[in-house]
Amino acid sequence: MRIKDEHKQEAIITATIKLVNEIGFVASSVSKIAAEAEVSPATLYIYYKNKEDLLVSTYVDIKKNLSDAMLKGFDNDQPIRDILRKIWLKTFAYISENGEYFKYTEQFANSPYSGLVNMEQVNQYFEPLKKVFRRGIEQKIIKDVDIDLLWIFMIHPILALANPRLCKNFEMTDESVEAAFNLAWDAIKL
Amino acid sequence: MRIKDEHKQEAIITATIKLVNEIGFVASSVSKIAAEAEVSPATLYIYYKNKEDLLVSTYVDIKKNLSDAMLKGFDNDQPIRDILRKIWLKTFAYISENGEYFKYTEQFANSPYSGLVNMEQVNQYFEPLKKVFRRGIEQKIIKDVDIDLLWIFMIHPILALANPRLCKNFEMTDESVEAAFNLAWDAIKL
Repeated sequence: MRIKDEHKQEAIITATIKLVNEIGFVASSVSKIAAEAEVSPATLYIYYKNKEDLLVSTYVDIKKNLSDAMLKGFDNDQPIRDILRKIWLKTFAYISENGEYFKYTEQFANSPYSGLVNMEQVNQYFEPLKKVFRRGIEQKIIKDVDIDLLWIFMIHPILALANPRLCKNFEMTDESVEAAFNLAWDAIKL
Repeated sequence: MRIKDEHKQEAIITATIKLVNEIGFVASSVSKIAAEAEVSPATLYIYYKNKEDLLVSTYVDIKKNLSDAMLKGFDNDQPIRDILRKIWLKTFAYISENGEYFKYTEQFANSPYSGLVNMEQVNQYFEPLKKVFRRGIEQKIIKDVDIDLLWIFMIHPILALANPRLCKNFEMTDESVEAAFNLAWDAIKL
């Protein structure tokens, strides 16, 4: 039995993201990814069944890491605006620092592989945030609209704001990040 | 001298979008795109200098068409909220109907080719909308924040809402589109 090595697995994930971002899903073969990660294809197959499994697992991993970063220090007892402000700032920081991950997830979401993700599992990662939305609706603090709509106005603009290619001239200071959160909050609050 | 044929050029653009969305930028060669468009590579070179020129021109074309669709029937004399509501609904309809274009532009924005676009030219297409924002700020109807920030909260969520892969469970009725515009408006209004 081969023992799994976390460092090797991390190297494989990093190589997958790098190669897919550079040359796309179609051209990124298992052998090229293994070479980029400096492992043999046989080693890669200890961790992943095939290319599909590797690409889908990498996507799910990024989502898991994002949810961990978003919800770090999550405290349900604070006022709803404070909870959401904290989540917003943490999400902004995480996406800004890990642009490559979200270049990958954007491409992935537009690829045929996206149909293979267990979305129930992924949605589960973000359940605590969705619960805050539901509580806000009950308490008549947040608009009574579809949770997906709240999610899109709260989280989606961050992907654009934190993308230097889209926001070349927009300087992200503490002040402007705070201003941006205010727009997100005004969108969803009742 | 060869005479340019609009239908051929359209076929080339359609083929470029289709192929790039299917197999990515790297694998999409001029010869494959020409074959997909059912023209010879020599014909393609009548319209475009090289692969770069073709990919960049296709991006600029999509942006031009989007701005034309957004600003159709644009009437500066209406109240600001009404102008923006009209633009929002037209943008939503256009993006919903042309998902393939925005799959291309998203991939393009994340590619090295994005550095080759004349952004001044592209930004010019959307200048009328930005002028509405500036007027709204002067009249203290819209928040006095960076125009890019207003743009992102107004327009960017549409890309997510109109993407069936992202919003599987979210049914887009006239009512829910109107609700979504209300969130966008509340985000930017003073």
